[in-house]
Amino acid sequence: MEHVCLHSLLRTPEDRTHAIGSVIKRLGEIIPGIRNELYPVTSSFGMPVYFSLERAAAPYFGIKAYGVHMNGYVEKGDQKFLWIGKRSDVKQTYPGMLDHLVAGGLPYGISCKENIIKECGEEAGIPRSISTNATSVGAISYMDIEGFRYKRDVLFCYDLKLPANFVPNNEDGEVDSFRLIPVPHAANIIRRTEFFKPNCNLVIIDFLFRHGYIHPDCRGYLDLLQSLRSGDCS
Amino acid sequence: MEHVCLHSLLRTPEDRTHAIGSVIKRLGEIIPGIRNELYPVTSSFGMPVYFSLERAAAPYFGIKAYGVHMNGYVEKGDQKFLWIGKRSDVKQTYPGMLDHLVAGGLPYGISCKENIIKECGEEAGIPRSISTNATSVGAISYMDIEGFRYKRDVLFCYDLKLPANFVPNNEDGEVDSFRLIPVPHAANIIRRTEFFKPNCNLVIIDFLFRHGYIHPDCRGYLDLLQSLRSGDCS
Repeated sequence: MEHVCLHSLLRTPEDRTHAIGSVIKRLGEIIPGIRNELYPVTSSFGMPVYFSLERAAAPYFGIKAYGVHMNGYVEKGDQKFLWIGKRSDVKQTYPGMLDHLVAGGLPYGISCKENIIKECGEEAGIPRSISTNATSVGAISYMDIEGFRYKRDVLFCYDLKLPANFVPNNEDGEVDSFRLIPVPHAANIIRRTEFFKPNCNLVIIDFLFRHGYIHPDCRGYLDLLQSLRSGDCS
Repeated sequence: MEHVCLHSLLRTPEDRTHAIGSVIKRLGEIIPGIRNELYPVTSSFGMPVYFSLERAAAPYFGIKAYGVHMNGYVEKGDQKFLWIGKRSDVKQTYPGMLDHLVAGGLPYGISCKENIIKECGEEAGIPRSISTNATSVGAISYMDIEGFRYKRDVLFCYDLKLPANFVPNNEDGEVDSFRLIPVPHAANIIRRTEFFKPNCNLVIIDFLFRHGYIHPDCRGYLDLLQSLRSGDCS
């Protein structure tokens, strides 16, 4: 079987969403981690929504998903520090791994900016008065095949410079703890370990490029930059 | 004739550089604007130098060239301003057009960082104590065919945040005047006019992405980002 077609009688996005929802329910435990959160399915970002489907099911159908990822950092004198979260040991995906200060999927019908502000509140207790300063800085993309899952993600990247005295506070139980570490220390963890949730590596590497920690006089600079940007950001 | 070969007796980079230099001299006025500045010819950045050739001749042979481009900006409260130069009316290339605060080709045997510091001094009178803070933020690439010239350029991009009271001062006669303008004003000039030297547009658009002036909730965001990154950065 090379592809699956939707029945031609399913004419509206709502009809399709409903029908596919029934199929996903029938698939039962083949698709673990159902979140009851609908993701829009489009040809590319901002285009009309063909239908929506359960977030956990998207990679089983090769559906592209969009998210927002934010590096929260602090400047002390000449040095910059990154706030790094450790995921809860009971989180369904990537338990116990290192994470950004704030990240989340982009649900249907909310702007990127509103979503990052919402996630800032839920994941790190950052008040709107601060999170409204989160600055969009680009996007990265990656693909990942694992078993029956074909992940195609585009992450909108944000930077937020935080006051030195701000301490994050997780409010939804998804984060075990937060630590503030010097940027070169975070770079070393990425280089030498697999502690970070894999997609966070890319967003931090993008940060390292934009803030001059990886610079043109480093060997292999353009190769790494080109590789980071080779994903399908559409 | 599909390609030109170098004589097999030319075994060292110096031999080749000398032989090609003679050819370029013979070509006379076919190649205007000779600068007596040698550019290294490599397969990609940082690789062994096969030979060097006159900077003005590089596009006539389709040779990739590398440069450094710097956006100098000032922060006043929540607003950012860009220092924009107007090129001298007697400059050989793009006379009278708008330009970055500092930009220059990357000659043989100097690091990108040293080059940007040198150009900061020559082009804008920025002392080393300030220019050493210039931060590498990525690279962009473009191709341009014009008459017999096939330009293949990779520009290493830098940001430099300047003190509010700093006023640039051109020291090599290449700049007519400087003006400090709000970032959205610079964006409008790019959108509506052809006043900027063409490659500067790309470096400023990259700045607009990284500083949140072009953001994911803008229509066509990913298309423009993907297009900006589609060049051959090698």
